[in-house]
Amino acid sequence: MMIDGLQCGHFNRESFMELKRGDIGCVTVTCGFWEGTVESLDSLGKWRDLVRENDDLVRIATSRSEIDAIIAGGRTALIMGFQNSNLLEGRIRFVELFAELGVRVLQLTYNNQNELAGSCYETEDSGLARFGREVIHEMNRVGILVDLSHVGNRSTLDAIKHSRKPVAITHANADSLFPHKRNKTDDVIRALVDNGGVIGCAAYRNITGDYFCRTVDNWVEMVARTIEIAGIDHVAIGTDRSHNHEVADYDWMRKGRWTRGVDYGAGSAARPGKVAPPDWFGSFSDLKLVAPAMQRAGFSAADIDKVTYGNWLRVYRDVFPA
Amino acid sequence: MMIDGLQCGHFNRESFMELKRGDIGCVTVTCGFWEGTVESLDSLGKWRDLVRENDDLVRIATSRSEIDAIIAGGRTALIMGFQNSNLLEGRIRFVELFAELGVRVLQLTYNNQNELAGSCYETEDSGLARFGREVIHEMNRVGILVDLSHVGNRSTLDAIKHSRKPVAITHANADSLFPHKRNKTDDVIRALVDNGGVIGCAAYRNITGDYFCRTVDNWVEMVARTIEIAGIDHVAIGTDRSHNHEVADYDWMRKGRWTRGVDYGAGSAARPGKVAPPDWFGSFSDLKLVAPAMQRAGFSAADIDKVTYGNWLRVYRDVFPA
Repeated sequence: MMIDGLQCGHFNRESFMELKRGDIGCVTVTCGFWEGTVESLDSLGKWRDLVRENDDLVRIATSRSEIDAIIAGGRTALIMGFQNSNLLEGRIRFVELFAELGVRVLQLTYNNQNELAGSCYETEDSGLARFGREVIHEMNRVGILVDLSHVGNRSTLDAIKHSRKPVAITHANADSLFPHKRNKTDDVIRALVDNGGVIGCAAYRNITGDYFCRTVDNWVEMVARTIEIAGIDHVAIGTDRSHNHEVADYDWMRKGRWTRGVDYGAGSAARPGKVAPPDWFGSFSDLKLVAPAMQRAGFSAADIDKVTYGNWLRVYRDVFPA
Repeated sequence: MMIDGLQCGHFNRESFMELKRGDIGCVTVTCGFWEGTVESLDSLGKWRDLVRENDDLVRIATSRSEIDAIIAGGRTALIMGFQNSNLLEGRIRFVELFAELGVRVLQLTYNNQNELAGSCYETEDSGLARFGREVIHEMNRVGILVDLSHVGNRSTLDAIKHSRKPVAITHANADSLFPHKRNKTDDVIRALVDNGGVIGCAAYRNITGDYFCRTVDNWVEMVARTIEIAGIDHVAIGTDRSHNHEVADYDWMRKGRWTRGVDYGAGSAARPGKVAPPDWFGSFSDLKLVAPAMQRAGFSAADIDKVTYGNWLRVYRDVFPA
């Protein structure tokens, strides 16, 4: 059994069957990027219908005990997450309301600065703004996990300092292993460790680099080197893999409604569009290859369990409502 | 102890103390009239804060057992209600989401026709529209009480026919006792009885008339005559009384954002603004006078209990989630 700290895309029954084939017991899904309040409620409503239609395969989890029960029942537990905080539309009170509707992971910023914080792609990272501090405390109170992927490094450090609960970088890699604006510097990762949080190693080619994408052993080499930075208790998996995403989806993710121009997101002019998944990761069920590769790399069974699901479970237990 | 099936206005600590002095164990409050989704979430958020600040006096109830527990604890149970369905913004999926956020009473239409049904003030009542049928079934499923006050008579009859659960006319009187567009004809009341529902007798002067407002015995005379139409198991109290409403609030209630012209709501050119409450009903705590007046009118203790709280409790038990 594995836990994936972040996936996105258009899920359908085939997606859920692929998760089952991969023995992926729990996934945080992306319910929105740029969407405001009403659109985010639309998304939650659609997710509920989709989950009800596939109740034999998946269920929505809102607590650690629900995750355990869903996995024990042979299904995949889905955690409702958003990669941006536009759903709040500036309202502190909406944090509690969205928590009640099952949202459990919220990224402070997506690719652009917002009312909460600075983003990894901005020239200047303002650090955590006033509303951002308020939202983090409210998220701590109601049991939503603070996700700091895509957030600027300065804002990430501020957020870690202000959070009274462990936080997560659900889907990013170590910048010292593959330099990229989306990846996190070692000082950020060490602050995350002090906070008790977890970084989910990504398997998105643009932020992983071709070398670590070549074989599962190469990717596990990246995981092992991340563990050298963060320690065995703070590294997990967050593939950032998308289901059924097309060019139009990348356009939405990258350009939202904020530009008429061109934006490559994690890509570049040389790699503008959809990139191939890692060579070893043709299907979601290939995540099964990670544990054996970790064994080959010399990890103990206990350590493999921590990285492939245990560390996420600990953070979910510490953060989500009981 | 009494239950009031509908109040509105700007509640504050003094309002809650008045409810306590009146031994009002449970009240459905109006969280909105014309507000859309985001504004309605704002309202729910504000209500939560207000209730938390006055936790010694009031709590929000979402089930019959919560109502019982709150009353047993010496507090007033507040039921979150809306007098219109604009909060749905045309989305069937939002019925479930608002139910999860604690909404338990939803009026299909306020003074104007909408996507669900026709209203009491429209020249033509379309009857229940397609979306209205869908919403009623969804409300039945998730445990929200269908409120048919302010709804046109034809739409009310349609809604009663389509609802698989008891419905309510939370705040209106019998048109045969005081003719007014807001009041309900005897055939509508009889259909409500067949459905197992309840009508809450109102104490709003514009729809009650001066005679029934003069003394509490006169008002109880109206209640007694309503019981002659509907039977003892289907009549309750829904005062329609407002807390701290000013002229600007009546403007909002009547004109919302739909007209630049003049609209008198339940009033008229002769009585355009805020009207005085019934002479006997200077304060909310005067509701205490109703039970003794019913006793004077010859009602048994058991029958008084039904009208002053028992019938509402039955409907809440039948409709709200367990």
